[in-house]
Amino acid sequence: MVDILHRIGIKAPAARVYNALTTLEGLAHWWTDEVLGDTQVGGKIEFRFRTQSGELLGGMVMEVQELNDNKDVRWRCVEGPEEWVGTDITFQLTEQDNQTIVLFGHRNWREAVEATYHCSMKWATFLLSLREYVETGRGKPSPHDLKIDNWN
Amino acid sequence: MVDILHRIGIKAPAARVYNALTTLEGLAHWWTDEVLGDTQVGGKIEFRFRTQSGELLGGMVMEVQELNDNKDVRWRCVEGPEEWVGTDITFQLTEQDNQTIVLFGHRNWREAVEATYHCSMKWATFLLSLREYVETGRGKPSPHDLKIDNWN
Repeated sequence: MVDILHRIGIKAPAARVYNALTTLEGLAHWWTDEVLGDTQVGGKIEFRFRTQSGELLGGMVMEVQELNDNKDVRWRCVEGPEEWVGTDITFQLTEQDNQTIVLFGHRNWREAVEATYHCSMKWATFLLSLREYVETGRGKPSPHDLKIDNWN
Repeated sequence: MVDILHRIGIKAPAARVYNALTTLEGLAHWWTDEVLGDTQVGGKIEFRFRTQSGELLGGMVMEVQELNDNKDVRWRCVEGPEEWVGTDITFQLTEQDNQTIVLFGHRNWREAVEATYHCSMKWATFLLSLREYVETGRGKPSPHDLKIDNWN
């Protein structure tokens, strides 16, 4: 199994970061502006990605598997790109040195394919967007996300 | 073994990206401004990292193991943080869609420790710095690098 792992520090209380990860409004401000569904445990959240002109690029559905207030978020991808289905996404929050440290994982890829390389880099830029949103109120969700290569 | 993997596209010919990866001057413009040594195969390159006020934070020595013009760069870390020694760093370049696609790997970590999460995120930001340097002439090498958490 292959895991994408990242660590980022956000200058805000854990509760504000947790809110950005567990509400439709929060998620829409840093990952993709088209989010719908139910963010509670057992619920399913659908994320859709479009070009700036509105063409649908794709999307995925995450089932919320675990929530611990201001500490842990765990989703399983249940629909989406073939390589993503069955993978797990985790956010672990701790407060240290007046920051909230986020340990991010996108775990259990069956193998390291070129999409893994792309998604690892892309997740890093979305975590920078999460930080920007929580610290300043304005992130860079898709379709206004930083493009990193010829895929997106 | 655990690998950090990233993909980034740079709007420049592969030869310019390769130059940024295989010359002291190029490396100093995107990773750390304190680089010395020999960038040829069998040579050793030393990278030192300081705070903006000049205090030494640490460094590492890479042995250049493979170079294929405008295509591949492979280093092995032979001195540095304990988790890094024995790991391999690779850059594979291909031209696609008027970009140079870089597949980056920092491979063969013995285990996923919290430093792995940190370094994965940090490598992503240094690859953005590499892109900025090659595309605009100005990157963000240490000590002017983007700080990502309470470690750096």
